[in-house]
Amino acid sequence: MMGWQVTDATIADLARGAAVLGTGGGGDPYIGGLIASQALARYGPVNAVTVDELPDDALVITVALMGAPTVLIEKPPNLNAVVGPIETLGAYLGRRVSHVACLEAGGVNSTIPVAAAAVLGLPLLDADGMGRAFPELQMVLPTLYGIAASPLALADEKGNVVVLQTVDNMWTERIARVACVEMGSVVPFAGFSMSGVQARDSLVPGSLRRCVEIGAGIRGARDAKNDPVQRVVEQLGGRTLFAGKVVDVQRATTKGFARGFARIEGGTGILTLQFQNEHLIAELAGSTLATTPDLIIVLEHDSGEPITTEALRYGLRVRVIAAPADPRWHSAAGLALVGPRYFGYEMPAHRFDGTIAPAP
Amino acid sequence: MMGWQVTDATIADLARGAAVLGTGGGGDPYIGGLIASQALARYGPVNAVTVDELPDDALVITVALMGAPTVLIEKPPNLNAVVGPIETLGAYLGRRVSHVACLEAGGVNSTIPVAAAAVLGLPLLDADGMGRAFPELQMVLPTLYGIAASPLALADEKGNVVVLQTVDNMWTERIARVACVEMGSVVPFAGFSMSGVQARDSLVPGSLRRCVEIGAGIRGARDAKNDPVQRVVEQLGGRTLFAGKVVDVQRATTKGFARGFARIEGGTGILTLQFQNEHLIAELAGSTLATTPDLIIVLEHDSGEPITTEALRYGLRVRVIAAPADPRWHSAAGLALVGPRYFGYEMPAHRFDGTIAPAP
Repeated sequence: MMGWQVTDATIADLARGAAVLGTGGGGDPYIGGLIASQALARYGPVNAVTVDELPDDALVITVALMGAPTVLIEKPPNLNAVVGPIETLGAYLGRRVSHVACLEAGGVNSTIPVAAAAVLGLPLLDADGMGRAFPELQMVLPTLYGIAASPLALADEKGNVVVLQTVDNMWTERIARVACVEMGSVVPFAGFSMSGVQARDSLVPGSLRRCVEIGAGIRGARDAKNDPVQRVVEQLGGRTLFAGKVVDVQRATTKGFARGFARIEGGTGILTLQFQNEHLIAELAGSTLATTPDLIIVLEHDSGEPITTEALRYGLRVRVIAAPADPRWHSAAGLALVGPRYFGYEMPAHRFDGTIAPAP
Repeated sequence: MMGWQVTDATIADLARGAAVLGTGGGGDPYIGGLIASQALARYGPVNAVTVDELPDDALVITVALMGAPTVLIEKPPNLNAVVGPIETLGAYLGRRVSHVACLEAGGVNSTIPVAAAAVLGLPLLDADGMGRAFPELQMVLPTLYGIAASPLALADEKGNVVVLQTVDNMWTERIARVACVEMGSVVPFAGFSMSGVQARDSLVPGSLRRCVEIGAGIRGARDAKNDPVQRVVEQLGGRTLFAGKVVDVQRATTKGFARGFARIEGGTGILTLQFQNEHLIAELAGSTLATTPDLIIVLEHDSGEPITTEALRYGLRVRVIAAPADPRWHSAAGLALVGPRYFGYEMPAHRFDGTIAPAP
């Protein structure tokens, strides 16, 4: 697998594919796409490198936006804001950052690193820390590998900077979250600094390329008058859970998250989706169809356009699909971090193949 | 004015005097005294230097506890915790800290710097940033002199460290406050790093010595069977506002502060005290007797023991006295920072001499 270039021509597909893997979270991909396009137009294309090309002694830094995607619509970040945390963290570490990486493959957080890499003139690692999106900072595969989130730098557009050095990644989340809410509920951050060896071990390889392929798949299916949703199902090795019309959405932005549920009415009953930024649980008539950590994705019925939780609204005709997560998320340690119980649902994780994970 | 040594023999007077200037805030002086005594016993006495002795190029760092004093009783800080932020800040600045200083003359925050100076083997500046205690971080005279609170380091006893670099001191307060609440509601911090010149300009000189003298005055008056409260009034150039019995206390720890009011019944009616950590307003029968920034101090009627807001309870016989603040607090900029309106009271600041400040 060789490196490739991220150009403006790639961004629309990348953003749409990232919104699919974003499983409802990660914010409006259009906003993230705009920021990346703006950066690529001004600074030129970004070299994406695969984990195999990464030098062992690389200094990889992940960059992402923290916060409630519901706020992102009102307050998109600017270019300076997305590089500030990387520069702060590099200075704090006293080392030169060699590669930028995505922490999640999800919506805006797949295109923000493109913008940051463009502005800084750094290569972008074609990989991410989850293979999907999750709402909290510690919910990344590097946590399972003992890689520290901190030192972690947050920087807002006003010029306020916070550097955290915490005893574990849960504490990074806790302190960063309250700072983020106080700083305006959406704040770029840089953290999880790691060597090339650590990045190769812990990250999900090729996820940017995968986003581009998913986005291109949807576009291609539309152009060819095929079914874009079916195309996504095939690409992800997933299955369709449900088709219907959104009849109810309850959503609140609390403590820095968009939390709520949606009800979708279809031929076989009413499907309920529970979400915290991302979709976590899909239930139909008291029966659980899919749970975190597997991907639960809502696509517009005909166009296959991914629908973020904040864009869910009454009357939308959608299909809900499920797809398997990176298998490491189904380990006991993975489920402790992102399984249903962590989010307060008293149920085991349902494996994509229909089996139920043993209680951790 | 020459330097002097802070020894264990001084601590009880220092802590009691600091509780007087603490105007209800600053926490239980007994706890602060214990920590300082422990540090002096282990590391030897601390050299207190006056602002006149301070080299122009000194690197002075203030250290204090942030948080609700109501929590401090349950969770006193340990010695390691009080030096952590200073060491973090020194490393962040890449410079050797030459002097430790108090940010406020108030309760625990006058003795914590003694402990920190002892552990680090550094001289302690006999000065503070307020000449009293105030509840928020930006409420210090250095703010009026354009001295930045940040970089500011917070460190909890678990080992979590937060470094802030903010656009102004209000933002330092906002972000540090939410981090502090998340980290356990009482956290030591170091900030307001300044040169010798800046410290000389902006701080209140001699406030540690003043605390010791106030504390010794109370002790001496008790020993001589004189009136300790009257002694404090004379030492502060203050006046007695009221004498009576505490009949009502409402107190809640919210957003990192102890907020509430107390009612004291006496011969001339019922006095109401409003507080946010510190006493802010004293009113009698609809008439305002004293307001922030002047000092409103509650002393036990007979012993002259200073009563912190969290120790106020039904039945206590007390005298309430007022004393003039550092005159810089009565400037327009000073009142904007700590006047009644900042705290939400729609009234002008009442000057200690009975006049009312013009609306800012």
